[in-house]
Amino acid sequence: MYEERIRRVLAAMEKLGLEQLLVADPQSIYYLTGYYNEPYERLFVFCLNADGRHRFFLNRLFPAPDFPCEQVWFSDTDDAVAILAAGLNAEKPVGVDKVWAARFLLPLMERNPNSRPVLASDCVDDVRACKDAQEQALMREASRVNDLVMERAAAQLREGVTEREIASFIAAQYEAEGCEGLSFDTIVSFGANAADPHHSPDETTLKAGDCIVIDMGCKKDKYCSDMTRTFFCKSAAPKYAAIHDLVREANERAEAMIRPGVALRDVDAAARDHIAAAGYGEYFNHRLGHFIGQIDHEKGDVSATSEIVAKPGMIFSIEPGVYLPGEFGVRVEDLVLVTEDGCEILNKVEKHWKTVG
Amino acid sequence: MYEERIRRVLAAMEKLGLEQLLVADPQSIYYLTGYYNEPYERLFVFCLNADGRHRFFLNRLFPAPDFPCEQVWFSDTDDAVAILAAGLNAEKPVGVDKVWAARFLLPLMERNPNSRPVLASDCVDDVRACKDAQEQALMREASRVNDLVMERAAAQLREGVTEREIASFIAAQYEAEGCEGLSFDTIVSFGANAADPHHSPDETTLKAGDCIVIDMGCKKDKYCSDMTRTFFCKSAAPKYAAIHDLVREANERAEAMIRPGVALRDVDAAARDHIAAAGYGEYFNHRLGHFIGQIDHEKGDVSATSEIVAKPGMIFSIEPGVYLPGEFGVRVEDLVLVTEDGCEILNKVEKHWKTVG
Repeated sequence: MYEERIRRVLAAMEKLGLEQLLVADPQSIYYLTGYYNEPYERLFVFCLNADGRHRFFLNRLFPAPDFPCEQVWFSDTDDAVAILAAGLNAEKPVGVDKVWAARFLLPLMERNPNSRPVLASDCVDDVRACKDAQEQALMREASRVNDLVMERAAAQLREGVTEREIASFIAAQYEAEGCEGLSFDTIVSFGANAADPHHSPDETTLKAGDCIVIDMGCKKDKYCSDMTRTFFCKSAAPKYAAIHDLVREANERAEAMIRPGVALRDVDAAARDHIAAAGYGEYFNHRLGHFIGQIDHEKGDVSATSEIVAKPGMIFSIEPGVYLPGEFGVRVEDLVLVTEDGCEILNKVEKHWKTVG
Repeated sequence: MYEERIRRVLAAMEKLGLEQLLVADPQSIYYLTGYYNEPYERLFVFCLNADGRHRFFLNRLFPAPDFPCEQVWFSDTDDAVAILAAGLNAEKPVGVDKVWAARFLLPLMERNPNSRPVLASDCVDDVRACKDAQEQALMREASRVNDLVMERAAAQLREGVTEREIASFIAAQYEAEGCEGLSFDTIVSFGANAADPHHSPDETTLKAGDCIVIDMGCKKDKYCSDMTRTFFCKSAAPKYAAIHDLVREANERAEAMIRPGVALRDVDAAARDHIAAAGYGEYFNHRLGHFIGQIDHEKGDVSATSEIVAKPGMIFSIEPGVYLPGEFGVRVEDLVLVTEDGCEILNKVEKHWKTVG
């Protein structure tokens, strides 16, 4: 599995004429080798080489990888960048990771001035965008747990409960289901708070007539889920129920289009046009979706400017919303996996609006 | 307050001959302006300028700062680096933050090829290392809560309890005390697990005779605490009690030396020599301490290679330990604030070994 992933990255490097690539994103290194390490401020690089001589550059404080390749170790008192620089071909360009910090990049450039740095993490990210069979299974499992916990959270929604209590309940349920944690900070928004798509749960209490936006995701076995549902407490005002229908239809129209070959900007347009046709276009003020995998926001999006064409194995969110400032908000979000001839929607929780409490 | 902090950073820039500095670390930006924002993959920079014309470069998805300076906004569909590049003096060197990602740095260098990038976040980090009065108050408060929760956690230590249960208890207590969260993943290690200084709490149950290492810290009002205490369940074997005494003495000897003008490598040596003299030198395999503030590990350490001389306002940990592989471990850690004529130890929990359970 790792061999195949690396083979695909090497092929992408060849297209760029790159013989050496420094992978620094810990998730990318895990993806390519199965070795996970969080280096914090220390240097940690997996160097891919066109000649097949891949190497880890590691601090002695890190655990030893059992991936079969050369390991170059250094300690806190060594000049780690000097050791890395000496291990590279100083006369050839070097691919660097988009997340690599200036504290490493600038001294490397000083040491190897004839080695032009090229932003090249796309070689890995584009491979990561298409999930292989093992990853698809992990993504399904994370979304299965997310569905389960969403249903349980909905059952906790009663007048008087606070946003923070619901968010804490969700975190505890994830833990009970064996998750490592959240894939992002849970959003629980009651009433007018829902007009802010990124509201942080606070002491606001639930009242009859409120809309309730819950946007949540867990991380399980290193893979993320992400789903949003919008409920109403006790009853739904007709105007708000109609907007909910509109947003759900936008979600469903977008999902119905997804198959290999479809331009993701067209998927964005389908959802956006449906909302705009009802006069709410200006209130849908974010992209339709984002790629997801080991982190909640991976490279790639479903937006008006996306140049991505759907390919089998891609997993991204479809999350249209309408937000009326000071008043109300609704979002309906699933994760979607592109299959050979269509798509598989990873979330099964009912999308139609319903009342709770 | 922000004016004074910025004045000190500008003075440091002047010493380097730098007229423009891109601050990208969200904690540094908060420190200088009171505006906190987590940009994830988006560009977010506070640009300090020697002429006093400081500017934010912000994505429209971020909340608006109320700090009085110019704001340059862009959206996801703009070329953010191009907008930043156009706002800089393209003929002068530009200071960049050590944490700034290659995805921004390399395109900026391409756009402004005559503007040499200089790693210059030390200008901010060295100012941040000396906490001002407001920060000292926040650090004291975070350590006060940490002391309180350590005492409560110690009261939970009974035969049969698991490491994970204690870690969960600590997290819940922090939340109840109004903390935002942990300053790092809590370490709870029973028996032989304590030989790994970075053990992750698992399902190991506490047994009579075990040592218990608890290394924990909360984040409150954006500032961190960090303390370690080592207990024994029911009884302490004489050998282990003696090692605990040794490590505590090393901690106390180091702390007793701390005053303005003392070289931090000498503080490290004092603790290390005391442990080595008893024959355990090789089992104290990490630095004596690290700086701390808005994050648990800030720039600066107390180690054999540290070139830092203590100055009033510096806050760092003093955490000697002895780890016997497969057998046992002990660490005793406080946070210490350098005062005008000595130091203030921020943690008050008894350090002498005691039995629990």
